[in-house]
Amino acid sequence: MHDEEPRIRADAARNRRAILDATAGLLAEFGYEHVTMDRVASAAGVGKGTIFHRFGSRAGLLHALALDDANALRHGVSSGPPPLGPGAPAEKRLFAFFDALAANVVANVELVAAVSDSTPESDAEPLHKFWHEHTRILLTEVRPDTDTDLLATLLLNTLSGSPVLRLIRDGHGTRYIDSVRTLITSMIRAGATSTHPSAAS
Amino acid sequence: MHDEEPRIRADAARNRRAILDATAGLLAEFGYEHVTMDRVASAAGVGKGTIFHRFGSRAGLLHALALDDANALRHGVSSGPPPLGPGAPAEKRLFAFFDALAANVVANVELVAAVSDSTPESDAEPLHKFWHEHTRILLTEVRPDTDTDLLATLLLNTLSGSPVLRLIRDGHGTRYIDSVRTLITSMIRAGATSTHPSAAS
Repeated sequence: MHDEEPRIRADAARNRRAILDATAGLLAEFGYEHVTMDRVASAAGVGKGTIFHRFGSRAGLLHALALDDANALRHGVSSGPPPLGPGAPAEKRLFAFFDALAANVVANVELVAAVSDSTPESDAEPLHKFWHEHTRILLTEVRPDTDTDLLATLLLNTLSGSPVLRLIRDGHGTRYIDSVRTLITSMIRAGATSTHPSAAS
Repeated sequence: MHDEEPRIRADAARNRRAILDATAGLLAEFGYEHVTMDRVASAAGVGKGTIFHRFGSRAGLLHALALDDANALRHGVSSGPPPLGPGAPAEKRLFAFFDALAANVVANVELVAAVSDSTPESDAEPLHKFWHEHTRILLTEVRPDTDTDLLATLLLNTLSGSPVLRLIRDGHGTRYIDSVRTLITSMIRAGATSTHPSAAS
């Protein structure tokens, strides 16, 4: 028995990956409402019982997928290539980070809507803390003239909420991403001019 | 009977005002949880039946108060003195408008939290449309280089949502108002520099 454990763990990890990938594919192709456990099982080549065993419910599966996407972005920030990862100037990292977050919201809008309704606040908390801390640290370099802690919360707040989800669902995803870019670029530019009092309003 | 109608209407309007003012006073003094219909009735000098007759329920009363505050701001924007009202340059009006909105959220945070949970989206819609349209029109002057329609939604989104309400409830209302100022000032400043390509990131 003992010798089989590594193989069983490898199978389980492969199944998990296959189920999450199948779910992501079905979400992109058919939309949130049409992702049934039967379809996921069939697309992933596993039994429905395996999915329930591992994820508990359809909500649990979608939640796991959302956390998986978020963790991929977190990994990109911590140890991926610049400008998202370390090694680029703070302005470029801030821009790349919000660009990636906005693109993530647009790509997963149905998932984000479903998860933000059903996820207990505490589950998302470690990730939100990470986003906030990363933003705050970058702002400390880009906008040392501001209350970076509060400003990080305000900027991250443009990535959630029903008005944002509504306009993405209405087909304005590209315009949304562009406007997040405008917002971040403006914060950066205004920092560059903030040493010239004549530019202040 | 006919001759009495104007007096009855005037009494009703005075009662309505007294009830709303009493509710606002009790909210400010004791906080949301402690505003009971009994206390409102006693503070307004009316019977509890009058409040129920006019507002339907405690939720209805709080909702009416929130709309009343919002309508006062709307009136200030449409026909009050500058810089909130007409007559000031667009940058100053944009700054004054967001400053007033942020101060409103801080002053009424318990009310905003209660109302955003219970208000049907459609009830708040005319007001949200007004805020959005006013912001969009000012941005068209201040930042003609942007997608003003989308940007208005993003900027207004910094005034709602549970992370914002949480930090105000945690006692950071003044810092929150200051950071909304930073955000709007940055949008204005970046517009002033956007004709100089060298300032772009």
